[in-house]
Amino acid sequence: MAVEQKLLANAIRALSMDAVQAANSGHPGMPMGMADAATVLWTEYLKHDPADPRWPDRDRFILSAGHGSMLIYSLLHLSGYERPTIDDIRNFRQLGSPCAGHPENFMLDGVETTTGPLGQGFGMAVGMAIAERHLNAVFGDDLVDHRTWVIAGDGDLMEGVNHEAAGLAGHLKLGRLICFWDDNRITIDGSTDLSTSEDIEARYAAYGWHTVRCDGHDMDDVRRAIDAALADPRPSLIACRTIIGWGAPNKMGTAATHGAALGEDEVKAARAHLVWEHEPFELPDDIRDAWLEAGRRRQGDHRAWRERLDASPHKDEFLRRMEGRLPEGAAKGDYFDWLAANPQKVATRKASEMALEAINAAIPETIGGSADLTGSNNTKTKGQKPLTAADYSGRYIYYGIREFGMGAAMNGMVLHGGVIPYGGTFLVFSDYCRPAIRLSALQNARVIYVMTHDSIGLGEDGPTHQPVEHVMSLRMMPGLDVYRPCDAVETAECWALALQRSDGPSLLALTRQNLPQLRLERTENLSARGGYRLRAAQAGRKVVLIATGSEVEVAIKVADALEGQGIGADVVSMPCWSLFDVQDAAYRADILPEGPLLVSIEAGTTLGWERYVGRHGLSIGLDRFGASAPAEDLFKRFGFTAEAIVPRILESLARSRSG
Amino acid sequence: MAVEQKLLANAIRALSMDAVQAANSGHPGMPMGMADAATVLWTEYLKHDPADPRWPDRDRFILSAGHGSMLIYSLLHLSGYERPTIDDIRNFRQLGSPCAGHPENFMLDGVETTTGPLGQGFGMAVGMAIAERHLNAVFGDDLVDHRTWVIAGDGDLMEGVNHEAAGLAGHLKLGRLICFWDDNRITIDGSTDLSTSEDIEARYAAYGWHTVRCDGHDMDDVRRAIDAALADPRPSLIACRTIIGWGAPNKMGTAATHGAALGEDEVKAARAHLVWEHEPFELPDDIRDAWLEAGRRRQGDHRAWRERLDASPHKDEFLRRMEGRLPEGAAKGDYFDWLAANPQKVATRKASEMALEAINAAIPETIGGSADLTGSNNTKTKGQKPLTAADYSGRYIYYGIREFGMGAAMNGMVLHGGVIPYGGTFLVFSDYCRPAIRLSALQNARVIYVMTHDSIGLGEDGPTHQPVEHVMSLRMMPGLDVYRPCDAVETAECWALALQRSDGPSLLALTRQNLPQLRLERTENLSARGGYRLRAAQAGRKVVLIATGSEVEVAIKVADALEGQGIGADVVSMPCWSLFDVQDAAYRADILPEGPLLVSIEAGTTLGWERYVGRHGLSIGLDRFGASAPAEDLFKRFGFTAEAIVPRILESLARSRSG
Repeated sequence: MAVEQKLLANAIRALSMDAVQAANSGHPGMPMGMADAATVLWTEYLKHDPADPRWPDRDRFILSAGHGSMLIYSLLHLSGYERPTIDDIRNFRQLGSPCAGHPENFMLDGVETTTGPLGQGFGMAVGMAIAERHLNAVFGDDLVDHRTWVIAGDGDLMEGVNHEAAGLAGHLKLGRLICFWDDNRITIDGSTDLSTSEDIEARYAAYGWHTVRCDGHDMDDVRRAIDAALADPRPSLIACRTIIGWGAPNKMGTAATHGAALGEDEVKAARAHLVWEHEPFELPDDIRDAWLEAGRRRQGDHRAWRERLDASPHKDEFLRRMEGRLPEGAAKGDYFDWLAANPQKVATRKASEMALEAINAAIPETIGGSADLTGSNNTKTKGQKPLTAADYSGRYIYYGIREFGMGAAMNGMVLHGGVIPYGGTFLVFSDYCRPAIRLSALQNARVIYVMTHDSIGLGEDGPTHQPVEHVMSLRMMPGLDVYRPCDAVETAECWALALQRSDGPSLLALTRQNLPQLRLERTENLSARGGYRLRAAQAGRKVVLIATGSEVEVAIKVADALEGQGIGADVVSMPCWSLFDVQDAAYRADILPEGPLLVSIEAGTTLGWERYVGRHGLSIGLDRFGASAPAEDLFKRFGFTAEAIVPRILESLARSRSG
Repeated sequence: MAVEQKLLANAIRALSMDAVQAANSGHPGMPMGMADAATVLWTEYLKHDPADPRWPDRDRFILSAGHGSMLIYSLLHLSGYERPTIDDIRNFRQLGSPCAGHPENFMLDGVETTTGPLGQGFGMAVGMAIAERHLNAVFGDDLVDHRTWVIAGDGDLMEGVNHEAAGLAGHLKLGRLICFWDDNRITIDGSTDLSTSEDIEARYAAYGWHTVRCDGHDMDDVRRAIDAALADPRPSLIACRTIIGWGAPNKMGTAATHGAALGEDEVKAARAHLVWEHEPFELPDDIRDAWLEAGRRRQGDHRAWRERLDASPHKDEFLRRMEGRLPEGAAKGDYFDWLAANPQKVATRKASEMALEAINAAIPETIGGSADLTGSNNTKTKGQKPLTAADYSGRYIYYGIREFGMGAAMNGMVLHGGVIPYGGTFLVFSDYCRPAIRLSALQNARVIYVMTHDSIGLGEDGPTHQPVEHVMSLRMMPGLDVYRPCDAVETAECWALALQRSDGPSLLALTRQNLPQLRLERTENLSARGGYRLRAAQAGRKVVLIATGSEVEVAIKVADALEGQGIGADVVSMPCWSLFDVQDAAYRADILPEGPLLVSIEAGTTLGWERYVGRHGLSIGLDRFGASAPAEDLFKRFGFTAEAIVPRILESLARSRSG
């Protein structure tokens, strides 16, 4: 290379400090500190083609320390990606710029993951490395043979999720995963000495990782470390000793460079220190050319790969999977025919397993798993082999007791492409992986969460295991479809909808306890409208009962009792609020009309149900923690029986007549 | 001891397998596996007095692997605690029994923490050990000098929170914390080999822990390991090799013993194997007496401690703190007087810091902290020294980037007693510690969460950092008071309420951006009613605007604009829904009357606001993720300005007139 590499790194430093200064907001310290190592990686090792950011066999690069977003924006711009342009960078952190405060995969090609919530980029990288090895096992080296690179900061490695993810990666021997730890010994509060004393390399070695240390400002030493990582069959942690804000002469090495603009004076001083005599956002031609040349480095490899793909008998299947299209005939519906002919009284978790038997047979890209509750979540189907270090072609992952790590890994798998992951735990432990669920939604990732034991109906395990607020609090997460099906048919419908949705996550809340099959006719997918009239009033309609999941059965008993007294009651099953809320006004008004008393029945918090029943409707719910006892005793104790509900409805009707 | 110790352990095994069998539900494997080690600990080492389970200087014992609840119920019963009785144990997992599926501190003295959600018992133990050292530093060895013992399983040590908690414990050199790892190599899914390959002892050594290994069925070896742990100044991990379900001859060592009753046949076989010839729930006198004698072992120490307490000049202060009573005069209100005289235009996070200056000066038992966002959360006041390994008397903890570990530690501190912890992070990262917040609520623990950057108002950091669904989804957690104050006065009021509440957690959602002081008169604590009329309509009231936090300022501008058009509008500030919802009906109807158009304004999800505005009110909110841009641009972009809101209100008024 004609230009000294240190100058290439200084281009990153200049763009980073100038963009943060222009925005007067952002994090210059991390990109300035890691500029040298990132330059070595991107100009010499990373397999990518800026002309085609979506080349399926590219290496994946994840900036887990997402606050250092100017590092990746600089790298993409300098390497010759169409975006970000220099104007995008000038508009760093402004409305509409793809150069958002933290990297957002939905704003910019080349940003593989949305990062910022610490630890999760690392966790997603583990998922990407799993997807790569799995697809390699399925399609061979010719089509799938790439690496996953991560830059992680101290924060990433303090967050609990890194423990879960690193343990999983070590167990699965993901040797094509290499993580740089930006060992700058600074966090927001100051020196890392304030809060931690651990030996991170020893910890990673304990997980079965290879570790190596280097001086992050000595490019030869960085190269040596990368070469050692490449040579080792284990996943690698490169402890990269850096000085945060390197180049800012008065602030480098201090927390002052972490999360704020350097200030005009210090930017000026850094220009002098780096001997960088160019205006903000100006790049000299030799440096620009050298970067672009490095960006074109692997175009030949890309062409050769295209040729292999064109010659491959797997081409169509490979592209189908990578583009996220379901196989033809995946939605045949034989299973629905069978259910109509053979009604099943099963728990919806069991119904989910039955649906999965059909799904996993028809859709080869599904990869199931559970956070150590396989037999309880019913997530493993008969033919599913485990995905292990010895056999990456397996389609079932024993995630261990790592809910958050599982969620992050599933996000990474989807973002890698080529697989559709689903994973299970108890619904109450959605709290443990909630940050990952949020990133599924924000990143438009087709992850399917299989959350069983969805209410006090789980019984004896008690309040620590009984969801109360979970279903509702998940319904309010933007972009997440929450399903709570009432029987085997709805469960299969919800699974079909979750799979068909290619642009976002779904979560199924499923029972531990058996439920009768309420849908006995073969119909179109009624759950697709989110809510529908399961049964119309026979007597004059005075009540509309709206229920979900296991409480639909209760609603039917309530309706029976009311009808027995000459009071007509519709029963509405509402498995998915987000789908119901986007139906047209006429449909919604037909299902939830003005006039009748609107009554919700759900064994969870009532807050939220006012959306459907209004301020003067009646919500039968649970606004306290549950208790440890057999499920039937709990339903009785907390009033989820027709005997308890009917009098409350009669009272409400009487009050509204007199009111 | 007259009776062979192995027989004492078998009493635990018998009670455990019989109780689980009677309930036909529960986890016999863990208590049967750890019975020997637990017997050594409880009969020889543990400092406690069954006659006074709340003796402040007792050792704390935490069964982090809470599914093995029959272990602690057996230990408490055998040691002579008043409860559980043998009938309580017979009713294991039945409605009303204090022997719940998982141990619940609010059901049974001697159960120090509610466990079951894995990893958190361990995390709470770290908090207890911190509280112990802090109070020791304050009150001296005479009054505070005890240990914290934990039993953790593989699941506890796979969960991410154990990484955060162990890192913190190592850093703080909590040498009086000793954790038994029940190394039985079995999880629910089967062998631990399915999901993990890590060297746990090496990992703990990397955190700065002492580690030692023993045979969990060899009581001498257990003793040797405990003695080594006691002798070492570091926190200790005792890797205790056990066989799950030890004693059940056909099932021991397998996952079949983990989470289900052994079955009548296997229980019978275990009786034979253990040579345990007693009926279920029957204990022979010699074994019962030996256990009771062991339970009385430390009564002399307890008496001596009482004598030291009675002689201590610190007695009143020590008891005040341990009983959770605030100091006299803590609620003087000088700060409120000052605010009325000197209105402050500050962010509520800054207002929180100002309130804390007064609080920390008046209440010596507060211990603050932040998960590495001290300067952003404004959680550290001027006089606060850090709590460090070198000085445990400090009152500020640099928790590091460990939100979940922080939450769990704070729960442990409260449950230990004697301190009132508060800790900060960004509101969006409440997701990272949500499982701990839930345990604060379930355990009735006075933890105060200081959550700043509470909406898109944080600006440029973008959607990964902008809470949308968080405030509402926290409101629906039973037992948690969520506060979103609108100015400096409300912030101080909410702090006062959070501190006064001794039986549960509070969470303050605070702004990054400055807000004008809207409350200019010295009044009683208006936030105590949850919501109140901040300003009454001047023209004829046609609209009631309900807002929280930063949007109250917006509501006032909207009201001004409406009044300018002759439309009267009340402005209601609603800082705490849970407090408002328990006001009497007349008060609530006065604040939120029928008739006027009800309009909510909050920069978060609208789902939930129907509770106050009904099906036909108007909710101004944000039902999508935010974006990266300066705060003002975002408020404009997403319609949180009077200019955007007034036309929507006029339209709604027109519609309701015509409808």
